[in-house]
Amino acid sequence: MRSVTIGILGLGQVGAGTLRLLQERRVEIKARLGAALDVRRIAVRDLGRAREVLLDPALLTDDPHAIVSDPAIDVVIELIGGIEPARSLILAALRNCKHVVTANKAVLAECGAEIFAEAAARNRVVYFEGSVAGGIPILRSLREGLASDRIEAIVGIVNGTSNYILDAMTRSGAGFSEALQAAQAAGYAEADPRLDVGGGDAAHKLALLALVAFGARVDPHAIPTEGITGVSALDIRAAAELGYVIKSLALAHDAPHGPCLRVHPTLVPRGHVLASVAGAYNAVLVESRALGRSLYYGRGAGMMPTAVAVVSDLLEVARDLLAGVAPAAPPAVRDVAPTSTDALEHEHYLCVHVPNLPGVLGRVATCLGRHGVSIARMIQERAGAGPVPMIILTEAVAERAMQAALAELATSPELAAPPTHIRLLPAALC
Amino acid sequence: MRSVTIGILGLGQVGAGTLRLLQERRVEIKARLGAALDVRRIAVRDLGRAREVLLDPALLTDDPHAIVSDPAIDVVIELIGGIEPARSLILAALRNCKHVVTANKAVLAECGAEIFAEAAARNRVVYFEGSVAGGIPILRSLREGLASDRIEAIVGIVNGTSNYILDAMTRSGAGFSEALQAAQAAGYAEADPRLDVGGGDAAHKLALLALVAFGARVDPHAIPTEGITGVSALDIRAAAELGYVIKSLALAHDAPHGPCLRVHPTLVPRGHVLASVAGAYNAVLVESRALGRSLYYGRGAGMMPTAVAVVSDLLEVARDLLAGVAPAAPPAVRDVAPTSTDALEHEHYLCVHVPNLPGVLGRVATCLGRHGVSIARMIQERAGAGPVPMIILTEAVAERAMQAALAELATSPELAAPPTHIRLLPAALC
Repeated sequence: MRSVTIGILGLGQVGAGTLRLLQERRVEIKARLGAALDVRRIAVRDLGRAREVLLDPALLTDDPHAIVSDPAIDVVIELIGGIEPARSLILAALRNCKHVVTANKAVLAECGAEIFAEAAARNRVVYFEGSVAGGIPILRSLREGLASDRIEAIVGIVNGTSNYILDAMTRSGAGFSEALQAAQAAGYAEADPRLDVGGGDAAHKLALLALVAFGARVDPHAIPTEGITGVSALDIRAAAELGYVIKSLALAHDAPHGPCLRVHPTLVPRGHVLASVAGAYNAVLVESRALGRSLYYGRGAGMMPTAVAVVSDLLEVARDLLAGVAPAAPPAVRDVAPTSTDALEHEHYLCVHVPNLPGVLGRVATCLGRHGVSIARMIQERAGAGPVPMIILTEAVAERAMQAALAELATSPELAAPPTHIRLLPAALC
Repeated sequence: MRSVTIGILGLGQVGAGTLRLLQERRVEIKARLGAALDVRRIAVRDLGRAREVLLDPALLTDDPHAIVSDPAIDVVIELIGGIEPARSLILAALRNCKHVVTANKAVLAECGAEIFAEAAARNRVVYFEGSVAGGIPILRSLREGLASDRIEAIVGIVNGTSNYILDAMTRSGAGFSEALQAAQAAGYAEADPRLDVGGGDAAHKLALLALVAFGARVDPHAIPTEGITGVSALDIRAAAELGYVIKSLALAHDAPHGPCLRVHPTLVPRGHVLASVAGAYNAVLVESRALGRSLYYGRGAGMMPTAVAVVSDLLEVARDLLAGVAPAAPPAVRDVAPTSTDALEHEHYLCVHVPNLPGVLGRVATCLGRHGVSIARMIQERAGAGPVPMIILTEAVAERAMQAALAELATSPELAAPPTHIRLLPAALC
């Protein structure tokens, strides 16, 4: 019986899930592949720790370098996460002519240039389906299903924590902090949630989506990124009254000099297919020239969903290895700066807390008008003792103009706080 | 420059789309594949007809047998549709050791045993992504993305015509006939719509989904199939009042002796991700053990969407051909009878037209009760001159019991017409 030999770096949730899937589906995998997938070694930090999966303790080592340099291993699965030591170990594995499967979006988004260059030099592949939207086969769909199509735009709910929190706020009326705490208690948010709720995780995934969809490698730090920490219970309620649901979206569209990318909370019309993506689910909507709109939806994280993606990559590598075929060279990639969002037109939602005094609202509207921002609709919340929240929907206006208007409003001594500001999903994507 | 040589049978909408995609994306395909896809001949019925795509008339022939027997052709793309001559031509192509790509669900659902046996005997592949849900890469996702997972259930909106009509009825309040006529005028329904609105087309696609997901080949005529012709404007309105949208679904779940399959209109809760699938779109929801719920959504038909699927299959065949690799043998398939739906439990929606007389409703309820059908909720529409429509939601009850109750009610002299009866989406899929 032929076999493909595997080393695994990291035996946390996803590592244990991968191992479990390889064990539980051993017979089916063998039948499908005509060969066994043989896990030879697993690197862990703590040899003594109890594991969520049955395994021969002799497989374990606390020296990951022993795996990436082991000549008996064909494929290294990196599931440590984070930048280092993942980066060094992936590079070492490639230098030792191993194929690599990883679910680590951070290391690929931050150090992709180096890693993919090394892979190309060694004629090895790095597959990373598990790094974007968990088990949803979105990268494979872009790469193969839509191979002959031209991708024009991508809109993703790719951070399950943010979606879980916004969804909980929508259902319960809770504020952000309360919903975050509940998400942490339920295991849907990390103790340090900043990478999730700040949008950084979504920016990493967006950079990888742009890599596969547009062949464009961008610095994830160059992606304009807004988290959901500024979204209030009032915003959720006001959006609902206007017929919208607030979602944290990662958006990309192709442009001549480099894709235009951004991550921000967004008002999505209630009947839109993205509006029904609840809880910790992920979804990626793709607009392509021939196919039109398509959408891929599923669990964006978790032990078994991500393991499904990891094993799907592993099967693809194994098929090529067994066939004795050089793996498909990835399409050419350009390193580009993303196109500025300055000229992007959006309708905007604003929530302005104005003191209940004559003339103030006029001055807000005048300020907006001075920057070319037209008001499409306005709702005044019931007046109380303090400042009154005014909800404004604007006509579509360029990002640059809206930012200038917001900057001026932020300095106004009449406003109790800078306006809250959330973009609407562009009409072309509705 | 190496190339893969192609013959196309049929140059209707999808054929023209395929050709256009191969022309427009020639450079990208060459770059990705390292070889050209070279269309050598195209069989058409009428050599003189004007075409929607630019082509060298010398490529055309009105003899499809010249293509399937041409030794210079590697891959035959069958886009004629229907059973014959598609079946004979596919078999002849396989006998002549050509790989086959097709978007023809009817021929594969009806004659799959014969076709796949011939393919296996010749060590050739038959790919058919375009035959189910148009351009959505659902078969590839099941086969590769979820390769290591165990599929438990599938729920699909796979007939765009039916979805378009039900969606139009929901939006406009129109009746079935009116909505069908509008769909025909808009090009979303055929002049003879029976295969679409009767559910037969969905049953074909469901049989192919079951083949890929469960490795089970079933006779599509053995699938219990109900179309949407009995759904009335009143049903749509009453369902909406109760918080549901009516969708035509193809449902499958795995069972020990063969999958349980059925096609029928279904009440789907309004917030469900399938409820937001509008117009002629398709969507396939998959429940699998490790990944959980995932969904694939997009245009289910049309010139360019289906062409994207055809070319994705073509690229996969071409990659193997160029690598000199035998294509992956399809996983083992069993020929099975589908598991009976008799014991399946559903909640049901009933609409009973009862004369406005004392005691009738009691007798309806008694009849239901006699068969073990409990009433969960009831709405009486406003009473008029004639019979009064009563809307009943039942508790979950086995199909067999409900059918017995319906059969008895249908013979009741007191009812103006047999009750309308629509199943609710099972709670496990909500």
